[in-house]
Amino acid sequence: MAGNRFVRRRAKLRSGVRQAGADAILVSNFTNVSYLTGFRGDDSFLVTGGSIDLLISDSRYTTQIQEECPGLEFQIRRSGQTMLEAIAKNAKKAKLRRLGFESSSLSFESSEKLRNAAPSVELVPLSGMVEQLRLLKDRQEIAEIRDAVQQAERGFRILRTMINGKMTELEAAHELEHTMRRLGAQCASFDPIVAAGSRSALPHARPTERTIGESPFLLVDWGATNSAGYKSDLTRVLTTGKILPKLAKIYRVVLNAQRRGIEAIRPGARCCDVDAAARDVIKSAGYGKRFGHGLGHGIGLDIHEGPRVGPNSEETLKPGMVVTVEPGVYIPGWGGVRLEDDVLVTPDGYELLTTVPKEFEDAVWG
Amino acid sequence: MAGNRFVRRRAKLRSGVRQAGADAILVSNFTNVSYLTGFRGDDSFLVTGGSIDLLISDSRYTTQIQEECPGLEFQIRRSGQTMLEAIAKNAKKAKLRRLGFESSSLSFESSEKLRNAAPSVELVPLSGMVEQLRLLKDRQEIAEIRDAVQQAERGFRILRTMINGKMTELEAAHELEHTMRRLGAQCASFDPIVAAGSRSALPHARPTERTIGESPFLLVDWGATNSAGYKSDLTRVLTTGKILPKLAKIYRVVLNAQRRGIEAIRPGARCCDVDAAARDVIKSAGYGKRFGHGLGHGIGLDIHEGPRVGPNSEETLKPGMVVTVEPGVYIPGWGGVRLEDDVLVTPDGYELLTTVPKEFEDAVWG
Repeated sequence: MAGNRFVRRRAKLRSGVRQAGADAILVSNFTNVSYLTGFRGDDSFLVTGGSIDLLISDSRYTTQIQEECPGLEFQIRRSGQTMLEAIAKNAKKAKLRRLGFESSSLSFESSEKLRNAAPSVELVPLSGMVEQLRLLKDRQEIAEIRDAVQQAERGFRILRTMINGKMTELEAAHELEHTMRRLGAQCASFDPIVAAGSRSALPHARPTERTIGESPFLLVDWGATNSAGYKSDLTRVLTTGKILPKLAKIYRVVLNAQRRGIEAIRPGARCCDVDAAARDVIKSAGYGKRFGHGLGHGIGLDIHEGPRVGPNSEETLKPGMVVTVEPGVYIPGWGGVRLEDDVLVTPDGYELLTTVPKEFEDAVWG
Repeated sequence: MAGNRFVRRRAKLRSGVRQAGADAILVSNFTNVSYLTGFRGDDSFLVTGGSIDLLISDSRYTTQIQEECPGLEFQIRRSGQTMLEAIAKNAKKAKLRRLGFESSSLSFESSEKLRNAAPSVELVPLSGMVEQLRLLKDRQEIAEIRDAVQQAERGFRILRTMINGKMTELEAAHELEHTMRRLGAQCASFDPIVAAGSRSALPHARPTERTIGESPFLLVDWGATNSAGYKSDLTRVLTTGKILPKLAKIYRVVLNAQRRGIEAIRPGARCCDVDAAARDVIKSAGYGKRFGHGLGHGIGLDIHEGPRVGPNSEETLKPGMVVTVEPGVYIPGWGGVRLEDDVLVTPDGYELLTTVPKEFEDAVWG
């Protein structure tokens, strides 16, 4: 039965909530609600624990919940009743004494309103409980991420054949998203970065009206969100003009760093050590100060989720985690090189989920 | 000077914050930060009031802030320092005793962390202060909304010429967004709703793989976000097959209701009375229970902002407000009709910003 996956996730959460000393938890982060129920809309909260396991939504979503969450108990709040009033009412009805809530998602104002609406219920701030479950992807989730990777990779392959020097960064970014959607993606997993020449020195460059052919190279950072909401995240550099020796040199440093980072991935490895494996290569080449961000991050229903792979990250890799590995070297005014792939931690080591070629020769466009 | 608009907005806010009894306010809602500074990135907070007027960001955004916010004082927090630590440090340095914060945007967890990082500063929950300023659009903002309207309208005109019965709802939605981008839009202002036949009975239908030609009519709810971030929001119905007498009847009821609603718009009108003007037409026609949502909402940098135009809305219209007027009649299992336009409140009455034809005859496709 399709619902079982979600029932299992909620059972794990309920057990964690009990251990944290609460009777139930209010899940207010919509991505977490999706993860726990399969419901893909917004403005809906889940209360689960003890005798209660209830999605609270509004009348816009009645049909969608029936379609997406077979077997899930849900309540459509009547118009005029706020979400927090509906929660308070159900908390009292279920005789909850201690109700946990997601304190990194619920606003201060909402927490106060809930406190006032349910004065007999003690509110317990809990943080990161669902995010902790989401760290480890199950088989189905890994299949969804593979799907998102495939949509991104096919989109990029098509973009490479369509791209020309007269296209602007913006046009290329829009073509890429549209192509991925044609291939079945729900949307891009974030606004694609298409950054020509010196713009690529900005890790979060917004595409502009600059034409691609004005610069000798181009950085593309993109991904797809598949129909189930799972995301991929890649970066490649394409040379679009004369090949610069400086570009070739930096490219090879970054590629070498990325390989070392990927090879350091295995169950039990500390994230800071994976970061260091890549960072040391860049430092040795004299570019240490030009790599200002962490090596990577988890992906899943969010484009940035745990674990963080950075110099200060004490987290330890476990089978089922999926992380990006994306070292970069950025020279202000000149440009930047970043290479990014998505990697699954397996029981034995790692599996590279992304397959876009990345030798420097592969970066030569046209 | 381009910055003046933002300086003026911050001056108004600072005066309101003083009246609310705080020395300064922490603005943590990114749309509000954009409105007050012109900065279009995220992960950046503004502290303004008394001797402090400072945007706090991170190193990814140095260049972008310099480009987008000439003259604005900003601080790039050093890596390792959290946003809340940076805020606490600046609050102490500026000797703030009472710091307001946006309690509907800041999470409970962040408010606690800030309290711990700056125990000598009293935190004052303030809600809706920037949203209150954003209610009244200035000349430039109205021009930006007109731009977003034009992108949406041209996109829809092109979609009408491209659409065919074999297209799926999803394909039509994707084509529409892509076309608006080609016309200069940053993106769609929300995922377009393209709902064929019975799907249109869901006010928030997600486009599916259903082909358009399977149903006798189609509802499209869409808008554009222009390059400055301002949004438009429209809805039209197209007949795609045999013209159903029931559709024609309901369509004319909704159109008549919409006209009455629009004509009720003037400075000083209460939002609930504008809602009633339209709702009464639908009630008289016997469809009162089939119109389950409010008549409209403000648009601007957000697709849903103030004022709310609904049965219980006591707000009063003022010149410079821009609202949608979108009555609908929804028959579960059969389908729905909604018509939506964007209307500016003027000193004398109203101006209809949207111009897509909407007589029932105009809805006949092909």
